[in-house]
Amino acid sequence: MSASGFEIKATDGAARCGTLHLPRGMVETPAFMPVGTAGTVKAMLPENVAATGARIVLGNTYHLMLRPGAERIARLGGLHKFMDWPFSILTDSGGFQLMSLAALRDIREEGVRFRSHVDGSEHFLSPERSMEIQDLLGSDIQMVLDECAPYPASRERIESSLALSMRWAKRSKAGFQTKPGRFCFGIVQGGVYPDLRLRSVEELLTIEFDGYAIGGLAVGEGQSAMFDVIAGTAPSLPQMRPRYLMGVGKPDDIIGAARLGIDMFDCVLPTRSGRNGQAFTWAGALNLRNARHAEDSSPLDANCACMCCRGFSRAYLHHVVKSGEIIAAVLLTWHNLFFFQDMLDRFRAAVMAQDTEQFCSRFLRNYRNGQIEEAG
Amino acid sequence: MSASGFEIKATDGAARCGTLHLPRGMVETPAFMPVGTAGTVKAMLPENVAATGARIVLGNTYHLMLRPGAERIARLGGLHKFMDWPFSILTDSGGFQLMSLAALRDIREEGVRFRSHVDGSEHFLSPERSMEIQDLLGSDIQMVLDECAPYPASRERIESSLALSMRWAKRSKAGFQTKPGRFCFGIVQGGVYPDLRLRSVEELLTIEFDGYAIGGLAVGEGQSAMFDVIAGTAPSLPQMRPRYLMGVGKPDDIIGAARLGIDMFDCVLPTRSGRNGQAFTWAGALNLRNARHAEDSSPLDANCACMCCRGFSRAYLHHVVKSGEIIAAVLLTWHNLFFFQDMLDRFRAAVMAQDTEQFCSRFLRNYRNGQIEEAG
Repeated sequence: MSASGFEIKATDGAARCGTLHLPRGMVETPAFMPVGTAGTVKAMLPENVAATGARIVLGNTYHLMLRPGAERIARLGGLHKFMDWPFSILTDSGGFQLMSLAALRDIREEGVRFRSHVDGSEHFLSPERSMEIQDLLGSDIQMVLDECAPYPASRERIESSLALSMRWAKRSKAGFQTKPGRFCFGIVQGGVYPDLRLRSVEELLTIEFDGYAIGGLAVGEGQSAMFDVIAGTAPSLPQMRPRYLMGVGKPDDIIGAARLGIDMFDCVLPTRSGRNGQAFTWAGALNLRNARHAEDSSPLDANCACMCCRGFSRAYLHHVVKSGEIIAAVLLTWHNLFFFQDMLDRFRAAVMAQDTEQFCSRFLRNYRNGQIEEAG
Repeated sequence: MSASGFEIKATDGAARCGTLHLPRGMVETPAFMPVGTAGTVKAMLPENVAATGARIVLGNTYHLMLRPGAERIARLGGLHKFMDWPFSILTDSGGFQLMSLAALRDIREEGVRFRSHVDGSEHFLSPERSMEIQDLLGSDIQMVLDECAPYPASRERIESSLALSMRWAKRSKAGFQTKPGRFCFGIVQGGVYPDLRLRSVEELLTIEFDGYAIGGLAVGEGQSAMFDVIAGTAPSLPQMRPRYLMGVGKPDDIIGAARLGIDMFDCVLPTRSGRNGQAFTWAGALNLRNARHAEDSSPLDANCACMCCRGFSRAYLHHVVKSGEIIAAVLLTWHNLFFFQDMLDRFRAAVMAQDTEQFCSRFLRNYRNGQIEEAG
């Protein structure tokens, strides 16, 4: 085990598999982190999340600071206890939601003044306050505050945003409360400009982090441009540090990025799609709202061992989706999270077996040749 | 074990505890049956329902005939398999929902023609068709079709409704598909008129049923009038047959009725209230939406061993109720169903110990002296 608590067990081309050693247990990588925005992975009990194989979830600083508040969670014993999740938690910094959810007031060197999307109240977030909040939550992996530039944006806009993000990264690291086993990650920005991405990596390396995220992707640039950025950035990141691709993505995005050397992922896709009637399978994506499932007695995926596929038919899922029953969200979210974990389980096995390329092309062929029914 | 598959283990005054022997296992009585309207106990997985202690749930003929359809469920292997519930199911006849949900067209001697509340399509339900649907569903305990008169209604209206219900009861019994271990229950009607209730009992006894329900209560007559009807009716029902009080009720209604000799209950209260932020406890009812719970680190009920009370604080529940998270419905429904089961577990123990009166007065004192916060 390295000083940073990250151990690489095998590599195969650019791909790797390893183990994150965190205070609340090990996480096998490449890892998918279900999103637990407001202190709950939507539609799932914590024991259900663990049953899908997940050992780390993501919590949102932005949402939790607004409701119920970081100081309140700290008084109640921290986020793990609050949401009854005994394993690891990574918290984002709030930067992304400031752009996507908050009514923005003012971005300045010092930080961001904004209005809550919940009740319109005014708040302030700076690199120091973001790290303070993540400390109050008791997060195991904490992210620096960055400015997420809109997409598309001019090179000049991306360049000035990057410069601000790098100054904030330095302040975030200074504000990070070091505790044994706890990680602080920097975030590489720079849009789709290879030289800006490399400049970002260099600046983060001088600050030194326990891991490095690639941010600002999956915002509309397309899968091929995203893979280009990853392929251009990953090799310059330290081999022995975990690499986290933020907010990605679809099953084929994840497999493609893991093949390029990414170790960690988070995305709302499996949970949000599950609430909208969509299921991911080894043979593509299904929309259970479609009438063709109404009398189909087969499970979502005959190759899946999840609770949903063991007990319930597509006909039942069609019925409860159409009827708006809560169990529809529970079953499809459970299946989707299990599928994302299972997909990376098998990817890790392929890396260990030096079979990554064959696994990935087989996976992508089956998935992309399958029917892709969009969410309802 | 008696011929009807109902065994009385102990009596104490009018109260009794016993065992229903059904094809899919035993049910201890007095029993509470969670309502699984459309093939799901709302917000609960079947394994969660079983974890609360329930061994029988109620399915609604009216809802299931409209969506997904009784013939479709039969082709898919029956309701137990469809909803992945391995224990017993009682189905109602559809009579109550015809009055409360359907756009009524026409009640005639032959049956009821009505429009679906789901899509406006036209349907017909008769005693024979109700029993046919319940047979297609594969229900373990099937109810006769009755006409549920509105409340309040004149004595004349109740009397003519009762006469129709008794003719329908005879046709229902004739249409009931006898199978080993399967029960058919008659329903006593007659409003709040003691002589009409007794007339109803007499007519049902001449038809002969495996159990007897008391219908048409908890519709606005008040608890004391309801208890009067039960006290006036139960003694004339056969001792050795199970007695089912339909659609009741609040915790104090259930304990009061069990004390008068009722063996079975169903009600949407624990599930519906759970989705609306209300929790039932040994010290009254709580509305988790109230700000006073926002920083309370204690569980809903320190005397409760349910999953929710073992893992989560009132502060967490307040947060997820306020945030509209699905886990709020899951946790509060789970707790409420567990509480209803636990309440009747302890009632049964009291009957076995010949301690029913003391148990009931202690329960009612604690419950009624507690804070009763209505659902949000």
